[in-house]
Amino acid sequence: MSEPRRELPPGYQEQLDLGYVFGGLSTFAQRPFVPHAAQLAEWKPDVAVMGAPFDLGTTNRPGARFGPRAVRTQAYEPGTFHLDLGIEIFENLEVVDAGDAFCPHGRVEQSLDNVKAKVAEIVNLGITPIVIGGDHTITWPSATAVAEKYGFGKVGMVHFDAHADTADTIDGNLASHGTPMRRLIESGAISPHNFVQVGLRGYWPGQDVWDWMAAQGMKWHMMDEVHHRGLDAVMTDAIAEAMNGVDYLYVSVDIDSLDPAYAPGTGTPEPGGLTSADLLRALRRLALETPLVAFDVMEVSPPYDHSDCTVNVAHRLIMEVLAGLAWKKSR
Amino acid sequence: MSEPRRELPPGYQEQLDLGYVFGGLSTFAQRPFVPHAAQLAEWKPDVAVMGAPFDLGTTNRPGARFGPRAVRTQAYEPGTFHLDLGIEIFENLEVVDAGDAFCPHGRVEQSLDNVKAKVAEIVNLGITPIVIGGDHTITWPSATAVAEKYGFGKVGMVHFDAHADTADTIDGNLASHGTPMRRLIESGAISPHNFVQVGLRGYWPGQDVWDWMAAQGMKWHMMDEVHHRGLDAVMTDAIAEAMNGVDYLYVSVDIDSLDPAYAPGTGTPEPGGLTSADLLRALRRLALETPLVAFDVMEVSPPYDHSDCTVNVAHRLIMEVLAGLAWKKSR
Amino acid sequence: MSEPRRELPPGYQEQLDLGYVFGGLSTFAQRPFVPHAAQLAEWKPDVAVMGAPFDLGTTNRPGARFGPRAVRTQAYEPGTFHLDLGIEIFENLEVVDAGDAFCPHGRVEQSLDNVKAKVAEIVNLGITPIVIGGDHTITWPSATAVAEKYGFGKVGMVHFDAHADTADTIDGNLASHGTPMRRLIESGAISPHNFVQVGLRGYWPGQDVWDWMAAQGMKWHMMDEVHHRGLDAVMTDAIAEAMNGVDYLYVSVDIDSLDPAYAPGTGTPEPGGLTSADLLRALRRLALETPLVAFDVMEVSPPYDHSDCTVNVAHRLIMEVLAGLAWKKSR
Amino acid sequence: MSEPRRELPPGYQEQLDLGYVFGGLSTFAQRPFVPHAAQLAEWKPDVAVMGAPFDLGTTNRPGARFGPRAVRTQAYEPGTFHLDLGIEIFENLEVVDAGDAFCPHGRVEQSLDNVKAKVAEIVNLGITPIVIGGDHTITWPSATAVAEKYGFGKVGMVHFDAHADTADTIDGNLASHGTPMRRLIESGAISPHNFVQVGLRGYWPGQDVWDWMAAQGMKWHMMDEVHHRGLDAVMTDAIAEAMNGVDYLYVSVDIDSLDPAYAPGTGTPEPGGLTSADLLRALRRLALETPLVAFDVMEVSPPYDHSDCTVNVAHRLIMEVLAGLAWKKSR
Amino acid sequence: MSEPRRELPPGYQEQLDLGYVFGGLSTFAQRPFVPHAAQLAEWKPDVAVMGAPFDLGTTNRPGARFGPRAVRTQAYEPGTFHLDLGIEIFENLEVVDAGDAFCPHGRVEQSLDNVKAKVAEIVNLGITPIVIGGDHTITWPSATAVAEKYGFGKVGMVHFDAHADTADTIDGNLASHGTPMRRLIESGAISPHNFVQVGLRGYWPGQDVWDWMAAQGMKWHMMDEVHHRGLDAVMTDAIAEAMNGVDYLYVSVDIDSLDPAYAPGTGTPEPGGLTSADLLRALRRLALETPLVAFDVMEVSPPYDHSDCTVNVAHRLIMEVLAGLAWKKSR
Amino acid sequence: MSEPRRELPPGYQEQLDLGYVFGGLSTFAQRPFVPHAAQLAEWKPDVAVMGAPFDLGTTNRPGARFGPRAVRTQAYEPGTFHLDLGIEIFENLEVVDAGDAFCPHGRVEQSLDNVKAKVAEIVNLGITPIVIGGDHTITWPSATAVAEKYGFGKVGMVHFDAHADTADTIDGNLASHGTPMRRLIESGAISPHNFVQVGLRGYWPGQDVWDWMAAQGMKWHMMDEVHHRGLDAVMTDAIAEAMNGVDYLYVSVDIDSLDPAYAPGTGTPEPGGLTSADLLRALRRLALETPLVAFDVMEVSPPYDHSDCTVNVAHRLIMEVLAGLAWKKSR
Repeated sequence: MSEPRRELPPGYQEQLDLGYVFGGLSTFAQRPFVPHAAQLAEWKPDVAVMGAPFDLGTTNRPGARFGPRAVRTQAYEPGTFHLDLGIEIFENLEVVDAGDAFCPHGRVEQSLDNVKAKVAEIVNLGITPIVIGGDHTITWPSATAVAEKYGFGKVGMVHFDAHADTADTIDGNLASHGTPMRRLIESGAISPHNFVQVGLRGYWPGQDVWDWMAAQGMKWHMMDEVHHRGLDAVMTDAIAEAMNGVDYLYVSVDIDSLDPAYAPGTGTPEPGGLTSADLLRALRRLALETPLVAFDVMEVSPPYDHSDCTVNVAHRLIMEVLAGLAWKKSR
Repeated sequence: MSEPRRELPPGYQEQLDLGYVFGGLSTFAQRPFVPHAAQLAEWKPDVAVMGAPFDLGTTNRPGARFGPRAVRTQAYEPGTFHLDLGIEIFENLEVVDAGDAFCPHGRVEQSLDNVKAKVAEIVNLGITPIVIGGDHTITWPSATAVAEKYGFGKVGMVHFDAHADTADTIDGNLASHGTPMRRLIESGAISPHNFVQVGLRGYWPGQDVWDWMAAQGMKWHMMDEVHHRGLDAVMTDAIAEAMNGVDYLYVSVDIDSLDPAYAPGTGTPEPGGLTSADLLRALRRLALETPLVAFDVMEVSPPYDHSDCTVNVAHRLIMEVLAGLAWKKSR
Repeated sequence: MSEPRRELPPGYQEQLDLGYVFGGLSTFAQRPFVPHAAQLAEWKPDVAVMGAPFDLGTTNRPGARFGPRAVRTQAYEPGTFHLDLGIEIFENLEVVDAGDAFCPHGRVEQSLDNVKAKVAEIVNLGITPIVIGGDHTITWPSATAVAEKYGFGKVGMVHFDAHADTADTIDGNLASHGTPMRRLIESGAISPHNFVQVGLRGYWPGQDVWDWMAAQGMKWHMMDEVHHRGLDAVMTDAIAEAMNGVDYLYVSVDIDSLDPAYAPGTGTPEPGGLTSADLLRALRRLALETPLVAFDVMEVSPPYDHSDCTVNVAHRLIMEVLAGLAWKKSR
Repeated sequence: MSEPRRELPPGYQEQLDLGYVFGGLSTFAQRPFVPHAAQLAEWKPDVAVMGAPFDLGTTNRPGARFGPRAVRTQAYEPGTFHLDLGIEIFENLEVVDAGDAFCPHGRVEQSLDNVKAKVAEIVNLGITPIVIGGDHTITWPSATAVAEKYGFGKVGMVHFDAHADTADTIDGNLASHGTPMRRLIESGAISPHNFVQVGLRGYWPGQDVWDWMAAQGMKWHMMDEVHHRGLDAVMTDAIAEAMNGVDYLYVSVDIDSLDPAYAPGTGTPEPGGLTSADLLRALRRLALETPLVAFDVMEVSPPYDHSDCTVNVAHRLIMEVLAGLAWKKSR
Repeated sequence: MSEPRRELPPGYQEQLDLGYVFGGLSTFAQRPFVPHAAQLAEWKPDVAVMGAPFDLGTTNRPGARFGPRAVRTQAYEPGTFHLDLGIEIFENLEVVDAGDAFCPHGRVEQSLDNVKAKVAEIVNLGITPIVIGGDHTITWPSATAVAEKYGFGKVGMVHFDAHADTADTIDGNLASHGTPMRRLIESGAISPHNFVQVGLRGYWPGQDVWDWMAAQGMKWHMMDEVHHRGLDAVMTDAIAEAMNGVDYLYVSVDIDSLDPAYAPGTGTPEPGGLTSADLLRALRRLALETPLVAFDVMEVSPPYDHSDCTVNVAHRLIMEVLAGLAWKKSR
Repeated sequence: MSEPRRELPPGYQEQLDLGYVFGGLSTFAQRPFVPHAAQLAEWKPDVAVMGAPFDLGTTNRPGARFGPRAVRTQAYEPGTFHLDLGIEIFENLEVVDAGDAFCPHGRVEQSLDNVKAKVAEIVNLGITPIVIGGDHTITWPSATAVAEKYGFGKVGMVHFDAHADTADTIDGNLASHGTPMRRLIESGAISPHNFVQVGLRGYWPGQDVWDWMAAQGMKWHMMDEVHHRGLDAVMTDAIAEAMNGVDYLYVSVDIDSLDPAYAPGTGTPEPGGLTSADLLRALRRLALETPLVAFDVMEVSPPYDHSDCTVNVAHRLIMEVLAGLAWKKSR
């Protein structure tokens, strides 16, 4: 990275550097902590990682409110040189940790407003937001903010998940983690024609929802297809579908797209999912091959994790995207 | 119990009996499952145990939504003969499991309404409700329903907790697990002069809230006093204070009144609390010596429990109250 | 399902419906609770799920006695519409929860007799039993009851397991979880020529047992073969072998046929096993392509599970079979 | 210890010495491993520690079969100098690890016979046996072997437990962990007049069993009494009662006599129990003040333990007894 | 606090404020992060909390390297108003988080040097250091730095621990967590006549070490004495002994002075220890009654903790000391 | 095995035999315990399994010091007949457990010297050492001892790992678990031309280290290659590369070469790794097809394991190598 690093207060960088194993201050990947919009405007990094500690939309096991903190403090990070791409990520990409949106307990609307405002602050500066959830309800305000920047219907979506999250309501709840994709399509933020889902499986939702999805023109690739064709072939189709006629891409990952063997720490686990290796390679392709402008990783629930397995995978999914972005920028 | 047992569908009682260790259907203490108001009206038990699987008011670690299920299915129950009182509880007291109030995810108001309605169904039949939480927000609707039955300001309250739960709002939230006691006093449901708190300690709330509490005329007994005087002496005072001029008592237990060594599975643990033995004996006295008309046990959070320690204590707190009620009735 | 649903006592169905996430009464998949033979005879469902909470035959880590309870109460179930088959299971298949057989602690013979009696009650009504274990000893009485209904030597067996379970005795014990298949073959309940094992691996049993198995004419497909040929190809052979000359099939799954990464909660884990996705698809084929008349899932040991991973997989294996049966019935 | 240490095979002692923290071979307290009767006869130590890995008598959570292994391998042991008594235990008392009795899975009678035979081997040489369970059923054969040595009705018993373990049968089972004390009294091995129980609490057994116990002349001290009088005063009575007219004492500890806060890793936890400090001091008095000839620690269930808390306490209970015996011998 | 708060970079304070539950940046008690000596010199707080993530001196279970991080990020903190003292701590006492000393893995000497240097930076500015360990080896460099500031032999020590930590070497290791107190006495940093230990128990060290301690003139109060006299009486003596002829006090807490029921997450647990309530009150007295100039909490090992019980207690021990200091300053 | 078994002290073999499930003495696979060099010289087994309980070189999560103990005591072992090879391992290969090298806490150099000495004792007798770690630093002394026996530069190395472990220093530490392979190449013990790494992935080390590795002539096969070509094809190349011009092979496995789903219990987990089945088959080929003279399994960290998953895999990796050696010897 040719441009000089902005200055942190004295002592901060040393403490961030200690954080690579077990000491010091904990930010995402020891990145500078730049929580304020004015600072971001001055600093103008390529990417800002932020947290959305919200789990009020969770139907089953809560705890995703602790996801952002855990990804910052509990993930193991030995280095930042991506072996397959051969690139030192942070020498090629300026990344900061922008802190968390305020998600007050028990207050759904206020929380979603705050997430939307913070994502907007980032994306409106032309910075790529990466959002650590929090439950999947968060993608509603987050992708809305991104669409408001780049244009409603102008941003494609690749959505990895065990569940379609396209119910109208659940338990009468419009702002559930089972409904955000419905909201995004209803509002026009994301066009159903560019909305592609990968990894679906299991027993939900019912026929009526699938009929609605088909009627909208949404695309999906179930795990059964992934098992038969391989994820790589599926991704080629998914990218083509998502990018058809649009110039921007939002990628949203529900950590439960992974099999529970790889990601036990989540609220609504569904056996039969992706492997970590597959999802990592899929994200690399998305970062390298598409005009990705926003990314989120949702549904990491530390109380149900073991030995930080899920937290570590979530951290690596973000690193994989950063590596791809760094590689693109470096060319 | 002289009156004949009402009939369950064939096979049910056998399966409930299997439940005493590791098989069969799981209701609280293998009691008959009588979830419907009409059935309750006909059956007319002395006590109905119900669940309120709600944790949207939790400021810190969620999971109390799984409290009612865990107390029904995970507690170990070797028998039902209370050794100190020498009484076979369910031969002297008719107790049923009335199921859960519907607490839809993400919907605070609807959940609290449903809890209030279900408690009202029970208490309005003259049955003693025992509510398993769920977070402490639940005591707001539950005690309101009880007060509506027996008269606003006519029911005393003994409240065991590490925290006073008398904040006006937290994070702008009126329906938080840190505010229910404020709501009950503001509405007049419980008179502050009969509102007694036991087990308070730690660092919350701040001076302004204590001033408000004192201005209202509330009473409290901090752990420091308990450590110096012993819980038994404190309880003698607490009972006198709570019953001064009223004829009914509601007893509410936050499981975090216990030290985390005894009850790790809770959302906001505070070191320095009660022992299980002390709390059990205090509840026995309340059941034996006061006109207790409602009881709740709140804040059991199974994801943070170990080896069902917290679940078992919660179960025993309820059994202790039932034993006291059975003894009183048998005389 | 065209026929009208039989009536449950008032309030029950509402409570069962609450059970889909975190409240209410817990039966398998919120199915009606029909524990008594007389009720079953009147209700006559297609399938009855029952538990066999027995682990006295376990050589290593016990705990499978808690398997049935955990599968009922701890599994996460978002819905009941099978995505790949496009079928709402319980609209096409009447399924009830028939409760548990009584397995008194420390009493092997009595427990096995009770299991056999309860399976017989179900199967003799022409209902398909699905048995949740409990350790694998249970398949001895269970498959015996099924063979007594359909004829000794008239029922094929597909048995997924890491271990052959065909020892004569272990530690001098005839009724061990390492011996049930020997018992079934010795008694003639299942013909060795229709007895097919899939997923075997590791270090047990020794040469003498394999010699005996070969001498009987049993068939087996080791994991090594599965890794080379793929499970789908192996299943085609296994089905042909098991159904050769018989008209009924019993499918028995030891959860340790899965790799411990997918199913840590079991008594005798053996690395190198099946993935959840593979086993789910294999069971779907069995339900769709064979005249399956009984199914069991054994060796789920909750004390060794993490984050309910194993419990969830076990639940899904049963759902997969139910989905296949529903699809067949609906055509 | 003035007499020279018997010789171990070369290298063994060095490896045992490594075991004091995290390496080497694991025997109890790094004591020489002397598993064979003939060796014991030659070596003639003061005390032989042995294991009884049996849990087939467990009514609720199994796992005590792993108790002996865990106490040997997982307990933390920084040294062997008892601070309060000021004595280096193993310089004053010859202690060996005699290995385990063979407790074949699923075979209750054979297991109990083997335990009895192994205890007899030890006690008949005049060596004090210390038995690590295993569930409490084990005390039946163990105390029978001790009584056969010293005379039926000639050995007193102090029994620490939450439960009386004096049921006739449970689930029709005579050899349950809830029945051993009944067996010992019925057979005459221990006289009821010298049978003293400490720590009882909770809800089991029922009135009929208490009537039987009283009719026999058994003595007991409930936790309620302990809370009021203090354990020290209770122990003075208990010792007097147990030793009235006899010259030998067997001390049996169910680890669930401790509160679950101190000993979560057990099968049938009951809140409201002893503290570790209290039980340690009580055992010290028993070792110092009585002619203790046998000791057992039962019901340690490692699958339900956390951070080896229960295993460590069990280890210390044995060390406390050894320290008392060493002190007595050294005078 | 009358003086105006120093300014943090924009956005920082808001993020620290979020940290009170589950979001934002994690410093100790949301205090400003002031890691650099020059900043500290300008800011000049009353107290600086720092971490020493070192566990290379651990004889048994490692993991204390993660102690500082866990106390900052995992402790639950509902507020900062000390209920018993009635004081808002941080309005009366300026406290900052000074970050961690660099403790490179595998390098004992370098780590201890870095800890000493960082403590010296703090104490030499007249700021009270509070050190979060890390294993107890850390008290060697930490107390040496404090003694270098106030004078060798001029600082008393009250040391809460299960173990005396006064061995000459362990495994030939001079810099072990079992030796720091020997080092401090040998170097003259702390006079043995003002060195008072509280909470000792168990089986270590041996007679020779006790002889050395007595010969030096050290004082100690074993748990046995605490159980008999009560901790309050013992503390009165301990304070008098430690302060005899000196004007400064260092207080060092090994978290294993607590019973494992209260603090399971530690490396060398010893049953029979203090309760949280007792230790909290003892520290309050020390902060209120003595000229405490430094404090440390050692041996918190998060991998062995459950539900953050140990982390929370460690956090509260620090808060209790801060509350006492705030109260003193406010008078 | 035609030659008669050497005699163990009476009772030992019976106790070892008990160890196959949950009793008795715990050695690796119930092999005779032969800890002393003189005994080994007399006994002269084919293979000696030893432990190196060292984790002072660990950069992140410690705990590998408990690896050897856990593999001996916690692994489940149902039998010793390798199903795929059809061979009773210990009838064809004499294997003993040689105990642990002494690895004193806090003393890196002394520990590494002791490991080297103990490996040398074994290998100099012509016995194949199998070393259970401990962290990967251990391979430095272990492979050095092997190279000193067979000649510097005469022994090839196949090294399975997520990380190259070829840093010059980490945190200034030459003896880190991230540096052993650098040390072996610098010293000439292993020639870089025969040094082959398999399974590398993630973000470490940086470009300079890869340049150094390439300059040396080292070979490596990243996971990306494994995912594309399959491990079997990669192994064919790896064997050819490692054996090019040398006659001996050392195989070193870092358990983190496996994906964390299969081996969560390790210090530096990296998502995207091998499956257990793949690694087991690769080791079988190495044992069967190469002149393997030494083997190690490193980085098993029990405090981070769940349900002994990682411990069991480590145990099976050793068994797979033993099976291959037994098969080779039997021909």
